[in-house]
Amino acid sequence: MTETPSRVDLTTITSLCKRRGFLFQSSEIYGGLGSTWDYGPLGVELKRNVKDAWWRAFVWGRDDMVGLDAAILMHPDVWRASGHVESFNDPLVECRDCHQRWREDQLSEAKCPACGGELTEPRMFNLMFETYLGPVKDDASIVYLRPETAQGIFVNFSNVLTATRRKLPFGIAQIGKAFRNEITTGNFIFRTREFEMMEIEYFVKPDEGEEWYRRWVEESRRWYADLGVNEARLRVRDHDPAELSHYSIATSDIEYLFPWGWGEIQGIANRTDYDLRAHSSGSGEQLTYFDNETGQHITPYVIEPSAGVDRAVMTFLTDAYTEEQAPTASGKLERRVLLKLHPALAPVKVAVLPLSRNERLTPLAREVHDKVRRSDAIRGLVQYDDAQSIGRRYRRQDEIGTPLCVTVDFDSLDDHAVTIRERDSMAQVRVPIEGLVAAIKERLPG
Amino acid sequence: MTETPSRVDLTTITSLCKRRGFLFQSSEIYGGLGSTWDYGPLGVELKRNVKDAWWRAFVWGRDDMVGLDAAILMHPDVWRASGHVESFNDPLVECRDCHQRWREDQLSEAKCPACGGELTEPRMFNLMFETYLGPVKDDASIVYLRPETAQGIFVNFSNVLTATRRKLPFGIAQIGKAFRNEITTGNFIFRTREFEMMEIEYFVKPDEGEEWYRRWVEESRRWYADLGVNEARLRVRDHDPAELSHYSIATSDIEYLFPWGWGEIQGIANRTDYDLRAHSSGSGEQLTYFDNETGQHITPYVIEPSAGVDRAVMTFLTDAYTEEQAPTASGKLERRVLLKLHPALAPVKVAVLPLSRNERLTPLAREVHDKVRRSDAIRGLVQYDDAQSIGRRYRRQDEIGTPLCVTVDFDSLDDHAVTIRERDSMAQVRVPIEGLVAAIKERLPG
Repeated sequence: MTETPSRVDLTTITSLCKRRGFLFQSSEIYGGLGSTWDYGPLGVELKRNVKDAWWRAFVWGRDDMVGLDAAILMHPDVWRASGHVESFNDPLVECRDCHQRWREDQLSEAKCPACGGELTEPRMFNLMFETYLGPVKDDASIVYLRPETAQGIFVNFSNVLTATRRKLPFGIAQIGKAFRNEITTGNFIFRTREFEMMEIEYFVKPDEGEEWYRRWVEESRRWYADLGVNEARLRVRDHDPAELSHYSIATSDIEYLFPWGWGEIQGIANRTDYDLRAHSSGSGEQLTYFDNETGQHITPYVIEPSAGVDRAVMTFLTDAYTEEQAPTASGKLERRVLLKLHPALAPVKVAVLPLSRNERLTPLAREVHDKVRRSDAIRGLVQYDDAQSIGRRYRRQDEIGTPLCVTVDFDSLDDHAVTIRERDSMAQVRVPIEGLVAAIKERLPG
Repeated sequence: MTETPSRVDLTTITSLCKRRGFLFQSSEIYGGLGSTWDYGPLGVELKRNVKDAWWRAFVWGRDDMVGLDAAILMHPDVWRASGHVESFNDPLVECRDCHQRWREDQLSEAKCPACGGELTEPRMFNLMFETYLGPVKDDASIVYLRPETAQGIFVNFSNVLTATRRKLPFGIAQIGKAFRNEITTGNFIFRTREFEMMEIEYFVKPDEGEEWYRRWVEESRRWYADLGVNEARLRVRDHDPAELSHYSIATSDIEYLFPWGWGEIQGIANRTDYDLRAHSSGSGEQLTYFDNETGQHITPYVIEPSAGVDRAVMTFLTDAYTEEQAPTASGKLERRVLLKLHPALAPVKVAVLPLSRNERLTPLAREVHDKVRRSDAIRGLVQYDDAQSIGRRYRRQDEIGTPLCVTVDFDSLDDHAVTIRERDSMAQVRVPIEGLVAAIKERLPG
């Protein structure tokens, strides 16, 4: 498929996100905290929907997966055994003139990119945030904010196996926050110090590693496509052998074509038996699986699909952004901005709009709103909006990606029917109020 | 209503939780990390369901509420303005003999409760976890792990107001992790250093504070009751004036009768305009609301219902635990353990069980399982289990609170019907496979 550039630049999407309440700069009234973001009223719904769609596809929808939610604070020995205390470092350099800090491995020249000044020698900087558990601040009380959720899965391998009586192959899925004290951040919510991950550790017999690795690359890619991401802006990039992490024999990235170029939104790695062996040796507990067929204890291989929640949000937002020419009520053409979000992801599922703010329309419109909102079938926000002209309200809903608007007009008082307007086609269809919930449900797959 | 003691002790519930995969001690293979817990395959579903039920009731179900998801790391000035840097302290004493540490305000005597040794003078210990943002560890780079989610709401007050054009009264709801470096922890997941909160900041005109405070106390209590918690184990306790926090003019706790006695599961406070004024003064930004009717800028009062997610999980688990005598297949009476969880909270919604593991039954049972699992109408785990006798499998599902079992037997091959068994009554009803999803949906409210 031909590569299709993004339809939106970063400034436009960031500004829409702030104006409409998707994302705010964290602690903004105090000048903000570097590259940290708060999800606003619409953003929190979009993020919930992304996580729910993932959980539904990979946990509820499969026989071979269970969920987990491990704590952010773990025993520090976890990070010694995993290799993070020793090796989770980036080379840090500082400009002797302007004192900006950079990752040396990301610089193309030996001079400061900001001012051209001379840089210090690189020193290795560990990306794990440290804090102290208990009232005494000494080395013995250091704990780390987890830089990934994966290790919480590995250390619970035996607990999960015992409690669920699983057979290979099976996976453990987890969604949760992770923290990395990145030297450089940026591109909105793409690279931040606090972020959320959706990770699977999928345990297989060692000789099935390669096959499952390939399957997970394809299933991971398809998840974004199934949720509407344009496949011309998705690609799979296999890592060169030189790029591979110490624990991996094969890694692929799912990349999306952002306004600034291709960026990783998910990685899939064949981690072999590295992690289970490392924690067996670190803890003294045997993290193995008893294979009934061969009567032997084996250490499974692990395939890890690891995705960023915030990067997924960024992908869906960017990909959904559309500008087009559309006719106004008076027939004039005007610019229409819409988010073509998959209905499962849209923060507002349905907006109920009286044609105008009128004392005869309001009671019926409120009744319709209540009916739709109370229905079990529609899981998500159902908004009521009666401010400004109907045209303005349609545009407002388009801009936040609401798939359906339900309009209550003066005819509704007589025919007990309302109009459903579809976001993308702007097609309108008249349906009886009695069958409204079913008609909505039919148009909101997922 | 008469107080009804808990039906279960802490050891029994903790052991069930570990055995069936609700909760594991965090980093257990490394000896654990004090009072930190990981949610296992069933626990993660239960916790999701608790949070979803809350979000659905208080965000999706209301016209006067919007959601938010602020970052855990905030600008340190937030915690200076809120008073946490100065005053979020507990008095810490240490035993000079055994070196155990205690909260002085929780001791009834001046000697160590563990060994009777002499205690040190108390010193004030701040409960906020500190870490450093960026590579330099100095005072200027200290950030805190938030000890509550509330402040993320206050600092976003103006952003939310502008983006959503809300009128008073309205609330902002948030679910997220918080961290407190508690000196003493315990009672399973009741008091831990890392925990999750569900908080609402509800903004009202100052003269409506008292009325809304009373309404939120009742709505908060009712949420637990609506989800099945025995009202004889719920009570509202108003704080004495001497107990009140510095920001509050009235506080009530919703308490639950745990195996060890009454414990707070939610607090409702009238925080007045303390927080918005504190952040206006701390940041220099005016956090006010323009009242169209009077033409004046006012600082709203805030009513705060603040609940612990983990404490809610603990409440629902404890309250659902039931032991009773039930007949086996052979008519003998035997002890039956069941969790009478509300269907909306149950981790597994439906279990599909072939009468036995048999090559004629398996294909149809798998087909039924797929049909139920794929249905949009059932949101949650749908399990398939064919290991051991049908009686054992019913008991297994009872013990984890599965509301419905669907049994596929040899008659099913002919009559294309299956048996639905209800957890609490053990009543069985035969339904055609064609109408199975509808029959399940009817029995799974919420």
